[in-house]
Amino acid sequence: MTTGSWASAERRAHLDRLLADLDARALLVVAESSRDPRLAPFVGPGRLGAGLVVWPRGGVPRLGYLSPMERGEAARSGLDLLTPEQLDIERLVREGPPPEIFLSELLERALHLSGLAEGTVAITGSQPVGEIHAALDRLGRSGWQFVPGEGLVDELRKQKGEGDLVGIREAADATVAAFRHVAHLLATAEIDGEGRLYRGHLRLDSEPLTVGHLKQELALLFAGRGLEQPERNIVAPAEEGAVPHNTGSPERVLRAGESLVVDLFPKGRLYADCTRTFCVGEPPRALADAHALALEALEAAETAARPGVFGWDLQESTCKLFREAGWPTPIDHPGTIRGYVHGLGHGVGHELHELPSFRRHASEAHGTLAVGDVITLEPGLYEPLDAPDSPGEPGAEPVASDSERGWAVRIEDLYVVVEDGVENLTPMPRALDPREW
Amino acid sequence: MTTGSWASAERRAHLDRLLADLDARALLVVAESSRDPRLAPFVGPGRLGAGLVVWPRGGVPRLGYLSPMERGEAARSGLDLLTPEQLDIERLVREGPPPEIFLSELLERALHLSGLAEGTVAITGSQPVGEIHAALDRLGRSGWQFVPGEGLVDELRKQKGEGDLVGIREAADATVAAFRHVAHLLATAEIDGEGRLYRGHLRLDSEPLTVGHLKQELALLFAGRGLEQPERNIVAPAEEGAVPHNTGSPERVLRAGESLVVDLFPKGRLYADCTRTFCVGEPPRALADAHALALEALEAAETAARPGVFGWDLQESTCKLFREAGWPTPIDHPGTIRGYVHGLGHGVGHELHELPSFRRHASEAHGTLAVGDVITLEPGLYEPLDAPDSPGEPGAEPVASDSERGWAVRIEDLYVVVEDGVENLTPMPRALDPREW
Repeated sequence: MTTGSWASAERRAHLDRLLADLDARALLVVAESSRDPRLAPFVGPGRLGAGLVVWPRGGVPRLGYLSPMERGEAARSGLDLLTPEQLDIERLVREGPPPEIFLSELLERALHLSGLAEGTVAITGSQPVGEIHAALDRLGRSGWQFVPGEGLVDELRKQKGEGDLVGIREAADATVAAFRHVAHLLATAEIDGEGRLYRGHLRLDSEPLTVGHLKQELALLFAGRGLEQPERNIVAPAEEGAVPHNTGSPERVLRAGESLVVDLFPKGRLYADCTRTFCVGEPPRALADAHALALEALEAAETAARPGVFGWDLQESTCKLFREAGWPTPIDHPGTIRGYVHGLGHGVGHELHELPSFRRHASEAHGTLAVGDVITLEPGLYEPLDAPDSPGEPGAEPVASDSERGWAVRIEDLYVVVEDGVENLTPMPRALDPREW
Repeated sequence: MTTGSWASAERRAHLDRLLADLDARALLVVAESSRDPRLAPFVGPGRLGAGLVVWPRGGVPRLGYLSPMERGEAARSGLDLLTPEQLDIERLVREGPPPEIFLSELLERALHLSGLAEGTVAITGSQPVGEIHAALDRLGRSGWQFVPGEGLVDELRKQKGEGDLVGIREAADATVAAFRHVAHLLATAEIDGEGRLYRGHLRLDSEPLTVGHLKQELALLFAGRGLEQPERNIVAPAEEGAVPHNTGSPERVLRAGESLVVDLFPKGRLYADCTRTFCVGEPPRALADAHALALEALEAAETAARPGVFGWDLQESTCKLFREAGWPTPIDHPGTIRGYVHGLGHGVGHELHELPSFRRHASEAHGTLAVGDVITLEPGLYEPLDAPDSPGEPGAEPVASDSERGWAVRIEDLYVVVEDGVENLTPMPRALDPREW
């Protein structure tokens, strides 16, 4: 095997342990393109159509590809290859069997070419459901047994390789550029009736500045850098941002004195993920205080994050900080929609949400930070319009009156875990006021 | 069932016939998001995360969704709904079983809620391979049997619904705008050393005009209209365009007097697909002749295309026209890389390539044009640098000398089949010379 592939010696040893746990003799990944997040790490910087990986226990992975024209792309993986000629693709295409027979013959040939005899194999990837189920049933009648292999690849993907990090840094750099652009637009916006009306509309080049305008600018910026937004983005002012899943209404005109949560998660080869909260003009006191508190929580979390730390422990510390400031948290008020209402972070890579996990019941392997993990830290506080009038903790601040509700702050950076802590992959200002950027 | 859904009375009758052929009592579609091309037509204009459809034979389809926040999006489908509450999602999430058990419990509940008892079900969609196979195995032990349902949905998708056509027209309109922009850029480009050097480099704003520059402009244009290019595009000059799968090298500088094949296939809710071939400055005689011939072939095909016509018959007529002009074709010279080297067209919709098929061995149902089918027609001629010196047909033109090789033409429009022929969805000039646009 060529050096430089994703299948490092550490990862090979890791897979062998995982396969032993499943009593499986190999991992098999099969997907319709290298966009599949479980095939992608093996393929690396190249682009493939349909492809597969066979990784025998104790052996090295082979990457199979189906089109002779993709030889160069496949070779960029640094893996040993199963060529279309070896896989007998031309005959299969010429004979044109039903898809489930095409698939079962292809997979069996790839397994045999990799020196495997009939037995238990961990399988993952993605395929049309009816066809792959019928294909695996057919192979089952020939003595193969298949167990889910999704968890194996998820674990192998947790600690990033060098190539993965290159891809994440590219997306992170574009994300930083996007935030600087948004901050610039907000900083140059004019406020309707400034000095006369509180929370006047924002204008840019005399036009009302809308959520849709910012989303359009973001789409253009990412497209210009070759990135996509497969999961879209969040540009959510005031009451919209106060509901974490609200992505922002395009027609909504932005106003001075309100919060604007911008959460961007574009994808190049891999994802990045980052959030800033802005306020043009004078922020209400509660918003400014919450922003300062979220910043304090973020700084505490990034100081504490290092290899060996359990993600849930960071979440507990964050909840303690918010609770002591009088806010409800998911630990003290499960299901709360006011205060701190979500987890502290998650892994990022070929999927927007992957390992490590920051959940309470994560296994040690899934929930413990390790060198090479890429994570977000994203404390936030939410004051939705429709929060029930619950008092929160004893000594808590009273719930805001109607006119003071409908805002949110969230500050999120992306980090890679290194030997002595974390390295910030999205370093840039965190100020509420875009004019301070 | 609300009117306006994708499940028209015609489509319901069609599905009942298809299910009867399979001896199946229902169609089940399960996918991780409404981006899945087999779930998407049911969902319509909304956007869903994980979702499913159960469509009992003789009954109406129900759309299941997993997040209460997606109620509004799900309702836009016009279908009866299986809500997260009915599907008992909160309990499943709380109990947190392994994914394959989550899936099998979810699917069985959806089937039972739809009035189905254990028996044979046609299934499709896409899921992580290991998890869905284990889930269906588990259901198999409870008396369910699953057969591949991919072909059913492929057939149901062949004739587009009104909502599908709205989505295709949006993508087609953006594609036309993109071609007009490319033609404008090419028409305003300057030619290095015009009048002195043959095939001088093109310049735009004093910079060499590259393939990458055009691709960048296209990415920005589509992003600005909310479209993606999940399958990228082809911007392939001269020798690159002469190999149909070459998508164009970004650093390649465009030249006067050479062919430039631009094939765009962006996706909004659905795909569009369209090709033009340009030549800035004086085209070589062989290129001009080939362009005129491809145009003649396209006009003949669009005159002949109408409901009831078998796609392969159109391919045969096209091959006859090219053969009589002295070019090799796939019928006379299977595997040729010179002349006309591919099929005449394909269906377009939720996938870039779908039914109808223009292949020789397509079934009558797959290969016969019908009202509502959306198709491409895309005759082309290729003169690659590395074509073997075969003479082609008796009386054929001699193979071009080295200096005359390395060009291609392809002209492709997108059509919807209507009662008396086809309606062009990408109407715009077809001239080689961008200054004639």
